[in-house]
Amino acid sequence: MSRFFSKKYKDLEPYTPGEQPKERKFIKLNTNESPYAPSKVAIEFAKEALERLQLYPDPECTALTAELSSLYGVEPDQILWTNGSDDILNFAFMAFCDESHPAAFPEISYGFYQVFAQANGVPFKKIPLKEDLSVCAEDYYDLGHTIFIANPNAPTGKALSPAEIEKILRRNPDSVVVIDEAYVDFGAESCVPLVAKYENLLVTQTFSKSRSMAGARLGFCIGCQALISDLNTLKYSTNPYNINSVTMAAGIGTLKDDAYIKDNCRRIAETRDYTTMELRALGFETTDSVANFMFISHPKISGAELYARLRELGILVRYFSAPKISRFVRVTVGSREEMTSFLEAVKLILEE
Amino acid sequence: MSRFFSKKYKDLEPYTPGEQPKERKFIKLNTNESPYAPSKVAIEFAKEALERLQLYPDPECTALTAELSSLYGVEPDQILWTNGSDDILNFAFMAFCDESHPAAFPEISYGFYQVFAQANGVPFKKIPLKEDLSVCAEDYYDLGHTIFIANPNAPTGKALSPAEIEKILRRNPDSVVVIDEAYVDFGAESCVPLVAKYENLLVTQTFSKSRSMAGARLGFCIGCQALISDLNTLKYSTNPYNINSVTMAAGIGTLKDDAYIKDNCRRIAETRDYTTMELRALGFETTDSVANFMFISHPKISGAELYARLRELGILVRYFSAPKISRFVRVTVGSREEMTSFLEAVKLILEE
Repeated sequence: MSRFFSKKYKDLEPYTPGEQPKERKFIKLNTNESPYAPSKVAIEFAKEALERLQLYPDPECTALTAELSSLYGVEPDQILWTNGSDDILNFAFMAFCDESHPAAFPEISYGFYQVFAQANGVPFKKIPLKEDLSVCAEDYYDLGHTIFIANPNAPTGKALSPAEIEKILRRNPDSVVVIDEAYVDFGAESCVPLVAKYENLLVTQTFSKSRSMAGARLGFCIGCQALISDLNTLKYSTNPYNINSVTMAAGIGTLKDDAYIKDNCRRIAETRDYTTMELRALGFETTDSVANFMFISHPKISGAELYARLRELGILVRYFSAPKISRFVRVTVGSREEMTSFLEAVKLILEE
Repeated sequence: MSRFFSKKYKDLEPYTPGEQPKERKFIKLNTNESPYAPSKVAIEFAKEALERLQLYPDPECTALTAELSSLYGVEPDQILWTNGSDDILNFAFMAFCDESHPAAFPEISYGFYQVFAQANGVPFKKIPLKEDLSVCAEDYYDLGHTIFIANPNAPTGKALSPAEIEKILRRNPDSVVVIDEAYVDFGAESCVPLVAKYENLLVTQTFSKSRSMAGARLGFCIGCQALISDLNTLKYSTNPYNINSVTMAAGIGTLKDDAYIKDNCRRIAETRDYTTMELRALGFETTDSVANFMFISHPKISGAELYARLRELGILVRYFSAPKISRFVRVTVGSREEMTSFLEAVKLILEE
């Protein structure tokens, strides 16, 4: 830390992203990427955009917005794009939380919520999960807090139904409720249709998981016009050209190729369910994940040990040291072949 | 504005970016883009990166950093990359300014400095330019403020020498001095060599102008390790994967093709000097710009009128309504052919 660093940030503890190995020798099941290639239409559109790289991108993302608007059945001015959905979450902590309106989110969830709160000087409350590691909707009634819920939640993969979220929305009419749907496409139900009814709902999604575009950094949110207008004020006060033109073009291509994406999601869900079945047969406890990852523990081995032994065998998974979940590891659903190798490695470790 | 928007931001006035016309019929001399295509090596590298778009980018930008480190002769941990240089400027306002350490910048300069200050709740002081629209280095001595100077300055194109900036650094040992070198490659001298001597110097640059990559969003800064570490704390607390993999690859390609970039800069400087000479012959007042734009006024016509008439003739330039510069327009240096069309249009307007 330099002697010039503002005191505001001196206790800030940054987020630690999952390891991105520079060598390619690992089977990478640690950051919830898709095992499938990006859409061919996306690549083709992106290549075209490269030819005009000397020009600034369209700050309004007009063509990309039009494409999503028609696919999702929402108005263009109900959509905002950011450089990955982390930027939207940060904007939401800036826009809708302050000393007088603190944040609330599940105790076990995406680790970045707490970092965003701290970075923006926002007080926050962490709400414990139920014994079965699910979010208890009733715990979020009448809170007087801006609420952030990942749905499906990470790293558990468990989801609330839109009906449960609707109750949270109704019981918090004076607070924004942010539903982070990064993992919604693998088996949960989206809350986007509720945006038409609730002015306090903001739904965020990303192209990093189901859409095979983690490398391109593209996230968006959908909410009523007034919420989107607030977030646009922040975008135009920090980085108006936040979406580069190649990512924008790839995004359009991906949305036009939606059948390919849906098919990938179906294949990932099948692989997840098959792998879960095999793991249970080996004595694993697994949450009922509807995401593209599994959250698993075994009575014979700690999460830390399982993570370390898998790494030695060339397989990267993610381990979280928080006491309530330290017996688990989070395993991204890879291709069928990758999961076969993973299961073989797990058997080997359990036999030791 | 929604009723949920934090009071912190209710008076925030966002930045207005230059127009990005959706139709391609204009000669675009309004946002200081390069008239030249991106490097062929950059395009080739970017195309390769598209094939791995499903994977997250390297948050440490290791390969890109290594390339810049060797080209600029600085250590890798003296470099930070962001999604365009606006993100770095915003980080610098966050990190090095607060109530107890306000910001200071020229009254006429990049309009975003004031927006960043307001967005971060930072008090600020605007320091007038000299009569000839140049920055007066002495005005920045012993300020007790975090100092932001665009060098060359925008929209005037006038630059301070490194010797003048070194005096500012020496006279403000307890304040960070940010030198924004977005336009340095067209004829000014960079302050990067001063980083080795001054722990309070942060130099920012961008790939948007001289490197023909405005569409890719790539900016960086160079400073001592402690300053870069502070900025990394903010990056990892807001958006660790801020550089997408295609932009990262294009950046590497561009740095490897530095001779092409230097040749483009030389051509742009020649076109600028030729156009300036022609404009002076037509009675224009022009600042001695060493950037890739000219700042010009004519006794016969106001800046607003000249902007509007040029637009009618299919040429976009930039006009700023601030009283002290309202007689000027800012004209990006395009290709020789574009500037010939521009000069013809100007002659037509003056003859009316």
